[in-house]
Amino acid sequence: MSKSVNLAVIGAGVVGSAFIRQLAALKTNVTFNVVYLARSSKEAVYNDDHSPINLNAYQSAAAKPVLSVSDLISFLTKANKPTILVDNTSNPQLADAYPQFVEAGISIATPNKKAFSSELSQWKKIFDASAKPGGGLVYHEATVGAGLPIIGPLKDMVLTGDKIQVVEGIFSGTLSYIFNEYSTTSPSQVKFSDIVAKAKSLGYTEPDPRDDLNGMDVARKVTIVGRIAGVPIESPTAFKVESLIPAPLESVSSAAEFLEKLPQYDDEMQKLKDEAFANNQVLRFVGKVDATTGEASVGIAKYGFDHPFAGLKGSDNVVSIKTDRYPNPLVVQGAGAGADVTAHGVLADTVRIAERIAQ
Amino acid sequence: MSKSVNLAVIGAGVVGSAFIRQLAALKTNVTFNVVYLARSSKEAVYNDDHSPINLNAYQSAAAKPVLSVSDLISFLTKANKPTILVDNTSNPQLADAYPQFVEAGISIATPNKKAFSSELSQWKKIFDASAKPGGGLVYHEATVGAGLPIIGPLKDMVLTGDKIQVVEGIFSGTLSYIFNEYSTTSPSQVKFSDIVAKAKSLGYTEPDPRDDLNGMDVARKVTIVGRIAGVPIESPTAFKVESLIPAPLESVSSAAEFLEKLPQYDDEMQKLKDEAFANNQVLRFVGKVDATTGEASVGIAKYGFDHPFAGLKGSDNVVSIKTDRYPNPLVVQGAGAGADVTAHGVLADTVRIAERIAQ
Repeated sequence: MSKSVNLAVIGAGVVGSAFIRQLAALKTNVTFNVVYLARSSKEAVYNDDHSPINLNAYQSAAAKPVLSVSDLISFLTKANKPTILVDNTSNPQLADAYPQFVEAGISIATPNKKAFSSELSQWKKIFDASAKPGGGLVYHEATVGAGLPIIGPLKDMVLTGDKIQVVEGIFSGTLSYIFNEYSTTSPSQVKFSDIVAKAKSLGYTEPDPRDDLNGMDVARKVTIVGRIAGVPIESPTAFKVESLIPAPLESVSSAAEFLEKLPQYDDEMQKLKDEAFANNQVLRFVGKVDATTGEASVGIAKYGFDHPFAGLKGSDNVVSIKTDRYPNPLVVQGAGAGADVTAHGVLADTVRIAERIAQ
Repeated sequence: MSKSVNLAVIGAGVVGSAFIRQLAALKTNVTFNVVYLARSSKEAVYNDDHSPINLNAYQSAAAKPVLSVSDLISFLTKANKPTILVDNTSNPQLADAYPQFVEAGISIATPNKKAFSSELSQWKKIFDASAKPGGGLVYHEATVGAGLPIIGPLKDMVLTGDKIQVVEGIFSGTLSYIFNEYSTTSPSQVKFSDIVAKAKSLGYTEPDPRDDLNGMDVARKVTIVGRIAGVPIESPTAFKVESLIPAPLESVSSAAEFLEKLPQYDDEMQKLKDEAFANNQVLRFVGKVDATTGEASVGIAKYGFDHPFAGLKGSDNVVSIKTDRYPNPLVVQGAGAGADVTAHGVLADTVRIAERIAQ
């Protein structure tokens, strides 16, 4: 008789539906019973007797209103089976409720950064609850670099007694693309505002590109890796984050107006790029945490043409981890965003949890 | 009451003693009881009642002759506790016995490549035994790239339905060092034989450098990653492996004579390097498996100056994994050899197994 685990899957957007597709095709020794599937913020599919949902027909299945957090916990715990909450949303309210799920013995796999990159007290609540006997497990590899192996290897280093020195990386696919196109190892005349406009037209940015350019997504990821590396970062606004939005454009009302006025500030960035190029360097937008001093920062930095960050392509992420055992850093590079790679990061975590708790 | 697991640790050489040091300092929820510790091929420390060995005094503890495989299995299973065999040797005999351990329900964590890179039938025996109800788990991250996250991420990709296209890498720290020093992005007059001699004097090579230069260590690693990627590679000699040993020097009797005569063959390699350099390329010694065609190979290849393999430093390994989801490959780079990083790879696997089986 094979072991099994119950899943509650929240979200069926781009990442959520990729996750469901991959889960439906999964071949393992463990049986995954999806007993609750919230296919939007309003509609959920579930059977009162906890019988599994058909993953190939969830879109057309009869839906009920989504359950509140407390009703969902009650519904899931009543099944009296090991259970994993898979949160494929970026919903901050659901993230706020993680400690309740974990206390109730429900494990969590998620790419949702919110819970792990907000106040430090929230982080502590989650992991303290997880460490208690009967607490759920919490895996969140896909919160940084999507499916890239970053959080797992970093945790392994800490666990086995390595001492983290510096974690440094290009954590935003959007800003990776913008700087890889803008600042290259061969001379180029391209304008910063043109690249931003191109990134938006390709769908690489948020609807308002300022939501990428403000650096907060990077700051959230730095907060997460920093905490794992042993630095008790209070919040993603507790350290220096350089915004790429010219101050006067922070308050303009629309994305369209922002893009229209951005060219007025091209010269400033051009100057920085030219100075770097004259020294055989490129500009990159990086997040960095120095675990030896506890300092974190996000902003533009310069790298020599032969540095791994200079050779980055497309919208790839790259993370460099320098430790006592890796004085030449361990470097991981590859696509750090996208539905399939994010879903695969979450699914691999889900399987890892299931291997530990399935009965 | 915390969960616990029994360990049998084989080997206390450079990797083995680093493992024991890291294990002694480990802080986890699981208690690790080392009930058997073979500190050499002859001497083992253990108590007949399975009481744990003091890891801080194993070197001076009273030793008994090592147990035979069948006696060891019998000793371990009598304790009636979840048990992990940690094989920190490169012993082929012990590797041959893995299926017996796994069938007996004993899990394995090891950096020993032998079992996973010999005949395909051996691989199948191990993993078939592991898949059976009651079979032990088998983790071997450190067989390729030491502590670098390669095998785990590759298995995750396969598990979650990604399709591996090509795995390509610099898998030998020794040959990485030799080629990184020999063939650079700036002109250099250094001779191949001088670099080999230097690598030997630095302790980077095997006592006889031909044991590195024959490419077999790389072929074994290619065999392992190829099999995980879905290619049923028969053995490490079942595909093209380019040896760097000039044919007439294969049979010279001593390492000293080999090193003395190697300079006679410098011109050949120099020509290859010059041709590459004229095309803005460097030479690297790589292993490669194409999972779409099933072809594997090991040998010298050329890479453009801006390729990640060209920028490699020291004796780092680098592995590039191209898949349907990562058309821009996922690249992992860092130290791929050394006692501490190998031990950390084995210990992280040991913990992963313990998290699944401890009771």
